[in-house]
Amino acid sequence: MGYTIQEQVDGAFAEVVEKTIDALEGEGFGVLCDIDVQATFAKKLDREFRRYRILGACNPELAYEGLEDEIELGALLPCNVIVYETDEGTVAVSAVDPNRLVGMADNPDLDPIAEDVSDRFERVLDSL
Amino acid sequence: MGYTIQEQVDGAFAEVVEKTIDALEGEGFGVLCDIDVQATFAKKLDREFRRYRILGACNPELAYEGLEDEIELGALLPCNVIVYETDEGTVAVSAVDPNRLVGMADNPDLDPIAEDVSDRFERVLDSL
Repeated sequence: MGYTIQEQVDGAFAEVVEKTIDALEGEGFGVLCDIDVQATFAKKLDREFRRYRILGACNPELAYEGLEDEIELGALLPCNVIVYETDEGTVAVSAVDPNRLVGMADNPDLDPIAEDVSDRFERVLDSL
Repeated sequence: MGYTIQEQVDGAFAEVVEKTIDALEGEGFGVLCDIDVQATFAKKLDREFRRYRILGACNPELAYEGLEDEIELGALLPCNVIVYETDEGTVAVSAVDPNRLVGMADNPDLDPIAEDVSDRFERVLDSL
């Protein structure tokens, strides 16, 4: 069973990243964390790597609700959307599956929140 | 089954955060992401919340190895360590359980990496 919802798109890497961030904002997510994996490996390990970004997306209303239900939930937040170059020359955009991620908490109160995030992520990916 | 490794410590919140970051660095983790949950909710929702930080910890060597084995793994990275005020007046430090988080990928090649991160997190928490 996979743990991401995936989409492959044509286009320049930087443009896909921008479009993804815009689409996330359109669905009420702020990008609270933006990790440039390629740059991090170059700096820390002096190793080359494909272009790869990890965007940590957080919808404040839903995060607040989730943390009210379960204080440790922050260990699983924010929900990541990754953007990377594929071997086929396309750009992959994959969101972590919120149902599986939040499902680790095994707390039924969180199910509708995860479902809501999941629906928003599906719309983000469909828009690319 | 829990999804975090927990420790409760006495001490001032800000000092525990600093000590946690130092201990993570001592185990080879950089903090690539540092979310002030209280400040975020205050700014975005105008709501009060306990002091709560999400530290996204990444060991570049282990992350590189993991991404070489599984390109989508970035959707689960970095591994979070959260620091928050408890209702009892202590400060909780909880690390996501890397075995459970990375276990979502169901890829045996990743098991030793998750085990390594887990051992390091245990030592970080023991040092607080």
